[in-house]
Amino acid sequence: MNIRLADRMSQVKPSAIRELLQLGADPSIISFGGGYPDASLFPLEHLEAVFRSVIADNGHEALQYTVSNGSPKLRGQIAARMSRDGIDCGADNVLVLQGAQQGLDLVAKMLIDKGDVIITENPTFLGALIAFNPCEPRYATVRMDDDGMDMDDLERTLARNPGAKLLYTVPDFQNPTGVTLSLERRRKLVELANRFDFVILEDTPYREIRYQGEPLAPIKSFDTEGRVIYLGSFSKILAPGLRLGWAVASEQIIQQLGLLKLAADTQCSTLNMAAVSLFLDTYDIDAHIATIRRTYRRKKDLMLDTIRRTFPQDVAFTEPSGGLFTWLTFPEGFDTTRFMADHALPEAKVAYVPGATFFPLRQEANHARVSYSTQSDEAIVKGITALGQLLTARLQA
Amino acid sequence: MNIRLADRMSQVKPSAIRELLQLGADPSIISFGGGYPDASLFPLEHLEAVFRSVIADNGHEALQYTVSNGSPKLRGQIAARMSRDGIDCGADNVLVLQGAQQGLDLVAKMLIDKGDVIITENPTFLGALIAFNPCEPRYATVRMDDDGMDMDDLERTLARNPGAKLLYTVPDFQNPTGVTLSLERRRKLVELANRFDFVILEDTPYREIRYQGEPLAPIKSFDTEGRVIYLGSFSKILAPGLRLGWAVASEQIIQQLGLLKLAADTQCSTLNMAAVSLFLDTYDIDAHIATIRRTYRRKKDLMLDTIRRTFPQDVAFTEPSGGLFTWLTFPEGFDTTRFMADHALPEAKVAYVPGATFFPLRQEANHARVSYSTQSDEAIVKGITALGQLLTARLQA
Repeated sequence: MNIRLADRMSQVKPSAIRELLQLGADPSIISFGGGYPDASLFPLEHLEAVFRSVIADNGHEALQYTVSNGSPKLRGQIAARMSRDGIDCGADNVLVLQGAQQGLDLVAKMLIDKGDVIITENPTFLGALIAFNPCEPRYATVRMDDDGMDMDDLERTLARNPGAKLLYTVPDFQNPTGVTLSLERRRKLVELANRFDFVILEDTPYREIRYQGEPLAPIKSFDTEGRVIYLGSFSKILAPGLRLGWAVASEQIIQQLGLLKLAADTQCSTLNMAAVSLFLDTYDIDAHIATIRRTYRRKKDLMLDTIRRTFPQDVAFTEPSGGLFTWLTFPEGFDTTRFMADHALPEAKVAYVPGATFFPLRQEANHARVSYSTQSDEAIVKGITALGQLLTARLQA
Repeated sequence: MNIRLADRMSQVKPSAIRELLQLGADPSIISFGGGYPDASLFPLEHLEAVFRSVIADNGHEALQYTVSNGSPKLRGQIAARMSRDGIDCGADNVLVLQGAQQGLDLVAKMLIDKGDVIITENPTFLGALIAFNPCEPRYATVRMDDDGMDMDDLERTLARNPGAKLLYTVPDFQNPTGVTLSLERRRKLVELANRFDFVILEDTPYREIRYQGEPLAPIKSFDTEGRVIYLGSFSKILAPGLRLGWAVASEQIIQQLGLLKLAADTQCSTLNMAAVSLFLDTYDIDAHIATIRRTYRRKKDLMLDTIRRTFPQDVAFTEPSGGLFTWLTFPEGFDTTRFMADHALPEAKVAYVPGATFFPLRQEANHARVSYSTQSDEAIVKGITALGQLLTARLQA
C-alpha cells in the first residue's frame, strides 16, 4: 500500500547529520560531528538524589499529569533566572518545552503559513530548518561576520521581503559558526523588528556556556513590543536526556504556544520537571555551570591551538567565546562532503559535519562544523593533528 | 503589538476540559471530570529503584541524547509485548512517543492537508480533535451503539466522503463512552479501509485495563496492507508523568513519523525510556496491571451500582468492560453544561465533563462523561449519590 502523504511531507527529509551521527558510533572514528555535551560533566550524584527524593517524597504528584504549560514551581524558577539575565518576566511568561527544539516546532506552527518568509542567519542551525520545513516557509538569509548577522545585509533582505514574518537567530556562540551577535546589533535587530513588524525567535541553548568576556544582554531584554520569543534549554547546562527547555515570551504568545503544546504532547514529563526544580532548589547550578565552562574552555583552547599548529594557513576558523563549535572555511572549490567520504574518514579516521547542510538556500561546499565538546583531550589532539596533516598534504599538493 | 498568527490558529482554541480540570482542583468539589489514573496505584518503590539504578549505573548514557525514534532496547521490548497481543512486529515498527497524544499530532501532520476528511466516532476523544485541528481537516462522523461504530453508518459516511484519508478510533473502552468495538466490526473496518483506501488510527491507551471478558484482537492484527497505525501508552499502566507512549506501524510509516518526531522535539527523555526499559526487565508489569484492573473494576462497580440506586430511570449509562469512563445520556432537551454550572457544582458539589465538546460536528447537549478512576470509594458513593438525588429532584419536578 502506498500512503498518500500530506503535501508538507515533501519538505520533510532524512538529514545528513543523522547519518553522520551514526558514523560517529564507529569506535575507530574520532567524531567531531555531534553537538552532544560532554557526558562526564553530568551531575549524576545530584541527579540521582533529586529523582530519589521526588519519587519517594512526592511520587503520587510527580508521576501524575500536571498543567500543560509546565509545573508552576519550575516556571517560576526559570522566570527568576531569566530576570537575573535581564529579561523582565514572571512564571506566566514561561512555557516548559520538550527541549528548545520543541519551541522551534511550536513557533513555526503558530506563525507560519505556506510561503511565509522566515529570515535566518547564513548558515543557520539545521534543526531549526527541520522544524520549520513542515510549515512550508520560504527562506531569506542574512550574511554573517565575526559579530553575527550583518545589519546592512538584513535591511536589504527586509527590503526584498517586506512581509517577512519571523527572524530566527542563535545569537550566542551560534550553531554552526560559534559566532556571537554584538550588543549594538542586538539593539538594532529589535529596532528593525519593530519597524518591519516581524517576530524574533532568539534561540540560545549555549548562552550560559561562555568562556571569556562578559555576557551580552539577550535580544529579549531590548524587546519593547512583545515580539521577541526567547528559547533556553537545560540540555547543555544539566543533561539533554531530561528533554527540558523553555520559552519566554509575552503572555499572549505563551498562551497560544501553550495551546499548541497541549495539542502536540499534553505536557513535559512531570517527574523530570519536579526533579530539575528540586535540583535548582538544592544545589548550586551556577557552580556546576562554572565547571562546565572551564572544561569546554580547555577543550576549545586545545582544539584551536592544534588547528593553529597543524592546519594549512588557507583554512580559516572562528574563535568562539563559548558554546561547542568552531567553523572551518576552506578555499573556494574545496568540497568538505567529498573530502570527508574520500579522505577524512578512511585516512585520518576523523568525522566532522560538512557545512553545506546548514545553508537554507545556496549551499556552500567549503565549510565544516567541528565540535570540541565530547572528545577527550587526547582524542582532540590526535584527531585534529591527523586531519591537519591530511589537509596539508592535500591542499599543498 | 498584535502578532499575525498562522491561519491554522483559528482552529486552536482553549478547551472546556482544561477549565474543568482547574475546577477539579477545588477541594470541596468531588470531580469525576479528569481522565487521570489513580495515583495511589503508581509503583513508586519500583520506579524509585529503576531510576536510581539507571542514573547510578548508566547515567552517562541515560542522560545523553539518543536516537530520535527511541532507545532500541525499549522499542524491542514494546514490539515483544505487541507481538504477544497479536501484532506481528519488530523494533523497527515501533516509534517511542511523548505519550500517545504525540502520535495524534504526528499522524495528522503526516497525512492531513487542509480540508482532508478525518472520520471519527461520534462522540470521540477531545484530545484527538485538539491534535488534528491545526491541520485544518474536515470531520465526518459515525454513529455508535454498544458495540462501537455502526458499520452500516460508516459505509454511508464513506459513500458521502469517498476521499476520506484517515479514520480515528478508540476501539477499547472508548473515551468518552466506555464502549468497545466488537471483533466482527474490527475485521469489517479493515476490509472497508482496504476498499476505500484510508488509514486507520487505532488509539488504545486503556486496552490493558480490561475488567471482564476476553481481550478482542487489535484492529492492527487484521491489517493486511500496512494501513493501520496503532498507538499505545504507559500512562495508564505505569504513570502518565513519565510521558511515554508508542506507535506501531509499517516501517515506511514509522520512518515518516520518525522524521516528524525528530523535527518536533528531537526525542523522548532518554532517562525515562531507560527507566521503563529496566522496569520491564526487572519487575512483572502484568502483575502490576492485574492490580490496577482489580482496583478500577471495584470502583466501576461501585459507581454503576450507585447510579442504579440513586439516578432517575430516564438517565442512561454505558457499562464499560474496562477503562476509566462511563457515559451518561439524559433526556432530550437536558443541557449538561448548564446543569453543571447551575446545579451540580453549587448544590451537589460534583463535577463531570459535559458531553457536547466530544462531538466534532453537531454538539449534543444531553450527555456527560464520568470517570471513576481518581476518586476514593467513599467519594464515589457520596458524589454520585448527591448527583442522583439532585437529578431525581430536578428531572421529576
